[in-house]
Amino acid sequence: MSRRRQIYEGKAKILYEGPEPGTIIQYFKDDATAFNAQKKGTINGKGVINNRISEFVFTRLSHIGIPTHFIRRLNMREQLVRQVEIIPIEVVVRNVAAGSICTRLGLEEGEPLPHTLIEYYYKDDALGDPLIAEEHIACFNWAGPEEMQDIASMAIRINDFLCGMFASIDIRLVDFKLEFGRIYDQDYSRIILADEISPDGCRLWDMKTGEKLDKDRFRRDLGGEEQAYQEVARRLGLLDGENSGPGEVFDLNAHRGKLRTTPKKK
Amino acid sequence: MSRRRQIYEGKAKILYEGPEPGTIIQYFKDDATAFNAQKKGTINGKGVINNRISEFVFTRLSHIGIPTHFIRRLNMREQLVRQVEIIPIEVVVRNVAAGSICTRLGLEEGEPLPHTLIEYYYKDDALGDPLIAEEHIACFNWAGPEEMQDIASMAIRINDFLCGMFASIDIRLVDFKLEFGRIYDQDYSRIILADEISPDGCRLWDMKTGEKLDKDRFRRDLGGEEQAYQEVARRLGLLDGENSGPGEVFDLNAHRGKLRTTPKKK
Ligand SMILES: Nc1ncnc2c1ncn2[C@@H]1O[C@H](COP(=O)(O)OP(=O)(O)O)[C@@H](O)[C@H]1O
Ligand SMILES: Nc1ncnc2c1ncn2[C@@H]1O[C@H](COP(=O)(O)OP(=O)(O)O)[C@@H](O)[C@H]1O
Ligand SMILES: [Mg+2]
Ligand SMILES: [Mg+2]
Repeated sequence: MSRRRQIYEGKAKILYEGPEPGTIIQYFKDDATAFNAQKKGTINGKGVINNRISEFVFTRLSHIGIPTHFIRRLNMREQLVRQVEIIPIEVVVRNVAAGSICTRLGLEEGEPLPHTLIEYYYKDDALGDPLIAEEHIACFNWAGPEEMQDIASMAIRINDFLCGMFASIDIRLVDFKLEFGRIYDQDYSRIILADEISPDGCRLWDMKTGEKLDKDRFRRDLGGEEQAYQEVARRLGLLDGENSGPGEVFDLNAHRGKLRTTPKKK
Repeated sequence: MSRRRQIYEGKAKILYEGPEPGTIIQYFKDDATAFNAQKKGTINGKGVINNRISEFVFTRLSHIGIPTHFIRRLNMREQLVRQVEIIPIEVVVRNVAAGSICTRLGLEEGEPLPHTLIEYYYKDDALGDPLIAEEHIACFNWAGPEEMQDIASMAIRINDFLCGMFASIDIRLVDFKLEFGRIYDQDYSRIILADEISPDGCRLWDMKTGEKLDKDRFRRDLGGEEQAYQEVARRLGLLDGENSGPGEVFDLNAHRGKLRTTPKKK
């Protein structure tokens, strides 16, 4: 394994060159950061769980026709994905007010938003990932107008799907962050979902107790972050041997439009 | 004058009840504030000049079919305007990078933007007028989608007109802030331009010397703010007795579509 070339080391993952051109390997670390990496730490076993949860979510999203970078999980901490040109925008979807929007707009944490809200942040650690609007994206050509339409409509569909998926295991999807990338098919390019979907980039509240099952436990020193991540994986049925085979191969067209529900585990 | 009722005292103006229902009087103070009123001061004669410049600009904008609140100037510091329901959004139009956008997005002051950029800020002093996107405006219903279309298209037209007006007197329009309001005509409502347009809310740079002729002189302690405001008024031909009669009465339809150029003064 020492022969492969490291492409990038980020805050939560390392990217390696994949076995074939156009592929890369995402290695999920246990490192955790918050507040633009001013706070640093480790959540034991997080990488293993996020790799597994992200595999599960991306696979299920491909079944409803969302194109994703996911190809297959390789081992406990690694997954093979299609290499993309990352759009430098963090897409945040919010159902309930929490985190930065509360201070920015004077909202109470936990207040349901009148409507689901999509926000865009410019992905630039040095600038602290500032909030932007579609006008900035157009002005600096970070993505084209058709690309933004695809991104917005995928984000809405992903939100609906994830709300349903988490509702079935008594978890409220408060908000989450997505990243998209561009792939080139000969003369044209298209947008696919990239990066990861895991408790690192989602706010997940237990519907009965209100308990936080996500990275806010780390951000706010609430403790029990390992257990929280595990609890999400457990409720998704990912800790008991079931649903834990190798990832299904990405196949957009086979399932397009068919929404298969996630088997509910107790 | 002591009988009339004060409706509101803001940072730069006082609003009084007008002589007829649906009208108010804007009184222009010399008070200057910056950085969300953390810095306070006075610019001698500013109120008189801003009243005059804003009258001039709003009158000329009505000639190209932009509906505005302006009715007529009453005296040195006061103008009669139509009362509106202010849309709680500050609309900022930028042609060149300056001010907050430089730190937010890492741009050099003076860098021309690839395209003219419209930004929206939520008008709330307690929150520090945070940047928002159209998604927030829709989510919290601060304005409707048709209203936002009217606002955006008026902002673009106003920018084109003002760029031309200032170019003819060797001033570069770097950026400016607009406020719009809603008026009710029986069953329906429409959007008109409100508040003021003056060196308080514009960045105006001398085209030859690059000298700042706006409130940045006060914000950045450059000195000479009185002279800068006067210079803008002088170049617009507002200090020599010409163009200084009472304001023309707001008449949208008489001139709709006809772009009359501002007489160039030397
Ligand atoms: N399919 C992909 N191809 C190329 N880059 C990707 C892909 N998926 C995610 N990335 C990028 O890889 C990095 C993942 O590592 P991470 O630790 O999350 O980094 P960061 O600290 O930049 O968030 C991110 O910068 C992300 O944008
Ligand atoms: N036509 C109008 N009708 C009602 N309110 C107006 C009108 N034009 C401007 N306003 C409001 O009047 C106030 C003007 O005073 P100003 O000193 O600029 O206040 P602020 O400190 O709130 O910016 C602003 O709050 C502005 O939104
Ligand atoms: Mg990341
Ligand atoms: Mg004001």
